[in-house]
Amino acid sequence: MSRFISAEAGKLAPYTPGEQPRDLRYNKLNTNESPFPPSPKVLEAISHGETEKLNLYSDPTCAVLDSAIAGRYGLKTENVISANGSDEILAFAFRAFCGTGCGVAYPDITYGFYKAQAALFGLEAAVIPLREDFSISVDDYMDFPGMAVIANPNAPTGIALPRSEIRRLLEANRNRLVIVDEAYVDFGAESCVTLIPEFDNLMVVQTMSKSRSLAGGRVGFAMGHADLIADLNRVKYSFNPYNVNRLSMVAGAAAMEDEAYFQSCTAAIRKTRAWTVEKLEGMGFTVLPSSANFVFAKSDRMPGGELYRRLKALGILVRHFDAPERIADYCRITIGSGGQMAELVTAIGNLLNES
Amino acid sequence: MSRFISAEAGKLAPYTPGEQPRDLRYNKLNTNESPFPPSPKVLEAISHGETEKLNLYSDPTCAVLDSAIAGRYGLKTENVISANGSDEILAFAFRAFCGTGCGVAYPDITYGFYKAQAALFGLEAAVIPLREDFSISVDDYMDFPGMAVIANPNAPTGIALPRSEIRRLLEANRNRLVIVDEAYVDFGAESCVTLIPEFDNLMVVQTMSKSRSLAGGRVGFAMGHADLIADLNRVKYSFNPYNVNRLSMVAGAAAMEDEAYFQSCTAAIRKTRAWTVEKLEGMGFTVLPSSANFVFAKSDRMPGGELYRRLKALGILVRHFDAPERIADYCRITIGSGGQMAELVTAIGNLLNES
Repeated sequence: MSRFISAEAGKLAPYTPGEQPRDLRYNKLNTNESPFPPSPKVLEAISHGETEKLNLYSDPTCAVLDSAIAGRYGLKTENVISANGSDEILAFAFRAFCGTGCGVAYPDITYGFYKAQAALFGLEAAVIPLREDFSISVDDYMDFPGMAVIANPNAPTGIALPRSEIRRLLEANRNRLVIVDEAYVDFGAESCVTLIPEFDNLMVVQTMSKSRSLAGGRVGFAMGHADLIADLNRVKYSFNPYNVNRLSMVAGAAAMEDEAYFQSCTAAIRKTRAWTVEKLEGMGFTVLPSSANFVFAKSDRMPGGELYRRLKALGILVRHFDAPERIADYCRITIGSGGQMAELVTAIGNLLNES
Repeated sequence: MSRFISAEAGKLAPYTPGEQPRDLRYNKLNTNESPFPPSPKVLEAISHGETEKLNLYSDPTCAVLDSAIAGRYGLKTENVISANGSDEILAFAFRAFCGTGCGVAYPDITYGFYKAQAALFGLEAAVIPLREDFSISVDDYMDFPGMAVIANPNAPTGIALPRSEIRRLLEANRNRLVIVDEAYVDFGAESCVTLIPEFDNLMVVQTMSKSRSLAGGRVGFAMGHADLIADLNRVKYSFNPYNVNRLSMVAGAAAMEDEAYFQSCTAAIRKTRAWTVEKLEGMGFTVLPSSANFVFAKSDRMPGGELYRRLKALGILVRHFDAPERIADYCRITIGSGGQMAELVTAIGNLLNES
């Protein structure tokens, strides 16, 4: 840290992203990317013509993109805001809805970024333990006098809550905001988007990084009551009005409009996930029930850290979290293509037989 | 505002970007974009191949981009950080270096975003009047117990400080950070990048939106002592680690490496600016001495607001700021292509003759 750092910045808790080797030599199953390229319609949208217009600012209202999203989910554009990835949307929400006297609650085991963003805005964070079986109990959030953030499905567990449970939380907390982070919802969980007309205390956050093959395009979005979206825009226009660039704008819109490609990619991931779970369980792994494009799994025969390191030595990257302790034996494994998962399963089989 | 907004977000002062009509029918001289398309090397860089990799996250360390920037300015990559436009870099800096007991100072007439970002982080802002002739006096910043932000050239005046003046400020304030926002420096002002090895209290912010024809690509960057850059990364990894998307990454690197195209575009703007100033002065305008890709000009024969409105009715957009009062008679006019400026000059001539 420099001698100029502010007291506030000194207290930050920066997030550590998964390893991103740039040489692409790894079988990369560590950051929950899609194994499929973006929709061919995305490739068309990023045409020479759009690239030639890069000298002109992008539309700060993101009209084309928001309109594609609203159309897909049966909402109005006033119910949608797009951003430079869902991390940015989450930061906007933490600033918009939390502050002095209004903290944030999230599970002890969940997306690590909530902690980083709570620190960014100096928020009081209530970190609520998952149940013994790694599921979220919405009852634990009923009395929290601030904003609750629920990843559904949760990461890195992959476990989803039924919509009815989130509805129960929303009904019991009509004066408290609930953010449902649905980064992984398209792989088998129940989305809460359909509850938006009913609850003005619900904000749903999604991303195009997983189910729409646009991790490198950085497109995230939030959906909710128009007043909530207006609050997020207030923060956006204080932070970075032109936050979505021209190419990501048209790429995101095209990805959202290609429903057939989306359905085909997510179906393929679900099928490969079922195959992977079967193989891992066949080798004695405990695999948490996943509704996401990854599985969280442990073997009694090899600690999680060792499995991660030995797979890496073989050119296969998975993600291992040292802390908290009760997940230290698990690895989070992205569901890639059938070929990638076959390679993983073979490698794990060999490692376990050697050990 | 929703009933869930935080006290902090309620106090924000969101920035109003210049009008961005999406139909491109206007002669658009209101947001200081380049009239030239990006370098042909940018078009090549955003190849089909790169687009097909959009399913994979971009490199959070921005190695390719930072390396191109460092190479251009004779720095190491540890002296460079890239971001989603220079607005994001500025926000990172406001968080990294300001907070309770450490506010920010900037001129009363300058880039409107500093005010928005000071409000975003709840900072005390010292707003220091420009001199009568609209120039910045560095002596006014000598005693400020916080961070100073100097746009050089300043916007919307276009007036530049000589490097020697900023050196004087840096020397007198070795324990205070000075941010020099050089968004417009490439059009004729003296950059302070060469002072970086000498001063660890200097951070230079630049953008590819103007001189490198990438406004729609959103690429900004900061250069300074490695410790300052590390502080900005601390904020970045708390806010949005994957903040530069894959396509902007390669576009920015390619734009930075095409020195010949950059020189040719900036020389053309300087030439067209000289022509425009001559024509405006010939029609009796007062034009502030500009080192930027815009001019700030007023006519005694037509108030600034009226000129703006009447030009808009003719399909020509310039920017007018209602406040503060002493610039209310001025319009900020982007230097576009020779053809665009000829159209502007003809239109203004006709308007003044009619009135």
